[in-house]
Amino acid sequence: MSPSLYQEVQHFYGRQMRHLDQGEHRAWAETFTEDGVFTANAHPEPQRGREEIEAASRKAGARLAEEGVRTRHWLGMLEVNERPDGSVEARTYALVLRTPKGGPTAVHLSTTCDDVLVRVGGRLQVKHRSVSRDDLQGS
Amino acid sequence: MSPSLYQEVQHFYGRQMRHLDQGEHRAWAETFTEDGVFTANAHPEPQRGREEIEAASRKAGARLAEEGVRTRHWLGMLEVNERPDGSVEARTYALVLRTPKGGPTAVHLSTTCDDVLVRVGGRLQVKHRSVSRDDLQGS
Amino acid sequence: MSPSLYQEVQHFYGRQMRHLDQGEHRAWAETFTEDGVFTANAHPEPQRGREEIEAASRKAGARLAEEGVRTRHWLGMLEVNERPDGSVEARTYALVLRTPKGGPTAVHLSTTCDDVLVRVGGRLQVKHRSVSRDDLQGS
Repeated sequence: MSPSLYQEVQHFYGRQMRHLDQGEHRAWAETFTEDGVFTANAHPEPQRGREEIEAASRKAGARLAEEGVRTRHWLGMLEVNERPDGSVEARTYALVLRTPKGGPTAVHLSTTCDDVLVRVGGRLQVKHRSVSRDDLQGS
Repeated sequence: MSPSLYQEVQHFYGRQMRHLDQGEHRAWAETFTEDGVFTANAHPEPQRGREEIEAASRKAGARLAEEGVRTRHWLGMLEVNERPDGSVEARTYALVLRTPKGGPTAVHLSTTCDDVLVRVGGRLQVKHRSVSRDDLQGS
Repeated sequence: MSPSLYQEVQHFYGRQMRHLDQGEHRAWAETFTEDGVFTANAHPEPQRGREEIEAASRKAGARLAEEGVRTRHWLGMLEVNERPDGSVEARTYALVLRTPKGGPTAVHLSTTCDDVLVRVGGRLQVKHRSVSRDDLQGS
């Protein structure tokens, strides 16, 4: 694994999470492949493809905007593994922080995030994401 | 943007925030350019130049020491963009954690931090910093 | 200090903390040198050598499993300094987050972590770790 790949993944996540937290729903969806899949132990069904991923983000964003809550997604403790086929396994811890207008900020969720990234037109995209919330143990 | 610039900015922030959190007020101020500007949506006026930046840090540090509170500034989710003139746009999320003697630790603030960095004598310095607290929405 | 060393240390910490948080006690101990030392201002005695480090991790892990609590160790704000003898000083801030079954997640501890890393068989290992809890000031 090259040092430049490691930081490229970090950079990618910085951009991706900013899209999510700023309600740039289309740009968020476009950080996934066309057929990207987003699964989570908190979701009854995976989100499949950019349309579903964008729609889910838009819905969640509208609810938070109504409540006047700002979210920040932090990813850290990155491990990267390059596969022979050129795809990239990227594992992170993810924290979701929420701040209502007037505060205070609170840690909303602690999760793990296991991605398979692929390169499309030179840029990384998420082909498969699996998010597991720490509070939903054994569920 | 080179991989080495990305990690150089990460390294710079590690050093800079340690100065701040350890009350090394002069060293903190010297991570800004001579004419560095620190603006924040929580401050009525920008801090302009190292003298003001050092004085503000010293004042805040004295208050926290009196209260027996230790702070930790975490920056993450870095995005870096190198401009044609060689200056660097660096955007991060920033968390401030506070721990009073005896605990517990709490998330004090969630902010964004948008910097313009320049290279002076081979080392990065902050020319302009803009910090926006998530709890002060629309204010 | 080379950019690749900086990201290698980040990567090492990702792997190491995952071992700790997932209860991989042997693998955790093996991220230390055979004679590795783990000191902390919260511990009456340092842990010396892999056997003690593994045993302590196993004991702490058993207690948390009993309580149904999941931990996540986040390291950040890394500073790296390579010494003339090839060993590496690595300083981080470390947060411990805890999530009981059903939530909520809370910041359990804020600490600093000062390591001396050495290369054994091409891979980084911790020769000496010193952890200082922010809540135990002056103790």
